[in-house]
Amino acid sequence: MTPAGAAGRVDNRARRDVLRAVALERGLDAVLVTNLLNVRYLTGFTGSNGVLLVSVDGADLLGTDGRYTTQAAAQAPDVEVLIDRATVAGVARAAVRRGAGRLGYESHDLTVDGLAQLEKVLADAVAGGSVPELASVRRAVEEQRAIKDEDEIESLRRACAVADQALAELAAEGALRPGRTELEVGRELDARMLALGAEAPSFETIVAAGANSAIPHHRPDATVLRDGDFLKLDFGATVDGYHSDMTRTLVIGHVADWQREIYELVAAAQAAGRAALAVGADVVAVDAASRDVIVAAGHGEHFPHGLGHGVGLEIHEAPGIGPLGAGRLAAGMAVTVEPGVYLPGHGGVRIEDTLVITDDAPELLTLTSKELLVL
Amino acid sequence: MTPAGAAGRVDNRARRDVLRAVALERGLDAVLVTNLLNVRYLTGFTGSNGVLLVSVDGADLLGTDGRYTTQAAAQAPDVEVLIDRATVAGVARAAVRRGAGRLGYESHDLTVDGLAQLEKVLADAVAGGSVPELASVRRAVEEQRAIKDEDEIESLRRACAVADQALAELAAEGALRPGRTELEVGRELDARMLALGAEAPSFETIVAAGANSAIPHHRPDATVLRDGDFLKLDFGATVDGYHSDMTRTLVIGHVADWQREIYELVAAAQAAGRAALAVGADVVAVDAASRDVIVAAGHGEHFPHGLGHGVGLEIHEAPGIGPLGAGRLAAGMAVTVEPGVYLPGHGGVRIEDTLVITDDAPELLTLTSKELLVL
Repeated sequence: MTPAGAAGRVDNRARRDVLRAVALERGLDAVLVTNLLNVRYLTGFTGSNGVLLVSVDGADLLGTDGRYTTQAAAQAPDVEVLIDRATVAGVARAAVRRGAGRLGYESHDLTVDGLAQLEKVLADAVAGGSVPELASVRRAVEEQRAIKDEDEIESLRRACAVADQALAELAAEGALRPGRTELEVGRELDARMLALGAEAPSFETIVAAGANSAIPHHRPDATVLRDGDFLKLDFGATVDGYHSDMTRTLVIGHVADWQREIYELVAAAQAAGRAALAVGADVVAVDAASRDVIVAAGHGEHFPHGLGHGVGLEIHEAPGIGPLGAGRLAAGMAVTVEPGVYLPGHGGVRIEDTLVITDDAPELLTLTSKELLVL
Repeated sequence: MTPAGAAGRVDNRARRDVLRAVALERGLDAVLVTNLLNVRYLTGFTGSNGVLLVSVDGADLLGTDGRYTTQAAAQAPDVEVLIDRATVAGVARAAVRRGAGRLGYESHDLTVDGLAQLEKVLADAVAGGSVPELASVRRAVEEQRAIKDEDEIESLRRACAVADQALAELAAEGALRPGRTELEVGRELDARMLALGAEAPSFETIVAAGANSAIPHHRPDATVLRDGDFLKLDFGATVDGYHSDMTRTLVIGHVADWQREIYELVAAAQAAGRAALAVGADVVAVDAASRDVIVAAGHGEHFPHGLGHGVGLEIHEAPGIGPLGAGRLAAGMAVTVEPGVYLPGHGGVRIEDTLVITDDAPELLTLTSKELLVL
């Protein structure tokens, strides 16, 4: 991929300005961003070690180590780069030198040990002077990340298209047939996504045949696909760092009545969930819109997970859509809708799409048909 | 793969007993393990949500959520499983019910917010009674994980063999030739490793041609391989969750004298590093043994990273082998030795092996030749 920062497509400074406004509003002089994906989001830098200082005075600083000197300069040309093996400490000392009196940090990311080390570095750096006060900004950057801009949505579209195409090719080539193992199918799906331009699968691909399809997150094994089996495929591709997520459940050979019945039930519940996606919708209500269909059919206990989740630089991110969620949907959020019904020992169905919330109908990114496909 | 727990190859209880002994020694009633890889190591459970309570009384408890009911029972048959969507809270409440007065936790893993939530759950659970005292066990499980048992070493052998084989096949097929792009080579290497049985690449495969080889962690892009280029490949395969790590630097077509010179220098430094691997060796001295060769040749500034690191369930784990490391090598540690010399704008060489420390000579797991290969 072309790193966003290098390509100059994305205005990372504008993203940092949003965090800067949060800092100003909370009376902070600067925010120390330690979450690596947040650093990537705010700078374009994709290395495995990075810490960002976003200052209200506009003089931002990206810390990393010597492995990334060239890469950091190339990907984040609009930020000063500090090379320091003890990266968090180096950036914290720089904050002290710049006179930060009140420093924001990410308490959902920094570990207990990390905070203790940071406090020690700050105390050492002021050498008897007054130690900067630390205040958590919590998930301020994650909240910002929940609303995708057009560049991010385009990356998600491409990621979803890769997954659609990979499945279509495997199905067309007859790769999903009796005699194949779950592991073989999973590896071919992964390899196909890579060949189509994915950086990686979004997560460990789930291939679950027959009774295994009743296990929501089954790990593919040597189980052989047989005639009459459900085949549940939950997979995605990563493009530009953005994750697609799709589940389809097919039938191999001949469909039994009970299979058609729960398939149609889950399909109806999934459609109800999609129909509930709207700007301002409460996430608990969206979950309920889909779950109610399954509960009404007497299968409430067979749907043991939430309806969906946000996707982006992480495969699971804000917003969570489930009975325990909180908050409302907003335009630009990318979310999954993935109800399932799992009958232990028999089989299960999950149908999942990735969609983007808009002021009109949600944009469907995973375009593979949701008709019951019999191969 | 067959999960270790399900196959019964690995005695996970024996691993938990080691942590139990640590808890006893530190006066703890139980330890709350939140690090997911530590949970996997101690139970065999590979789901994406898991928390483990290891009690000195032997009644261990694995918490996860409803997606993993079946998988947890199958992978961790010797541990009681608790299904609770609020998993950490559920397991913490169970610890209180079992009368834990002093509870260990992982302060390097638990976030600042996570600790605050845990303290609140404990306070609520005792309902006015005395709240369990929390004490960090720090990296007790990681220290245990640094010494691999025979099962783990066998997984690493297989992971390294997959990487060796993938590179051998690509080289034999002429896939590494002028005109190909870094991205194409990287994707083929990844796809080949998957086809050979890897669960995933160990990390984002590094393919760096020509001047890009001077960037230690270059991300593959559309750069085209040309005659006379260095081609640096840093990659690995994951098998049973265990990561292999290998770097080879080849030359495409014709070798220039300066290329041969720095290649031989890095090869000599790498051999010196390998020769220093021994039970009881100080990690700083091991780094120095290799680094001194490069410094003596006047290239000290062109080797900006540590010599190596432990590998296992993580691609980077204990021990760190570098100027800032601490500690000594022990039998059963699996480590990399990977010096490099990078000449900005020209090119660079890194040569990396994965090896296991033994009472005799270290066992070399990455068997691809380290002769300068000209393709």
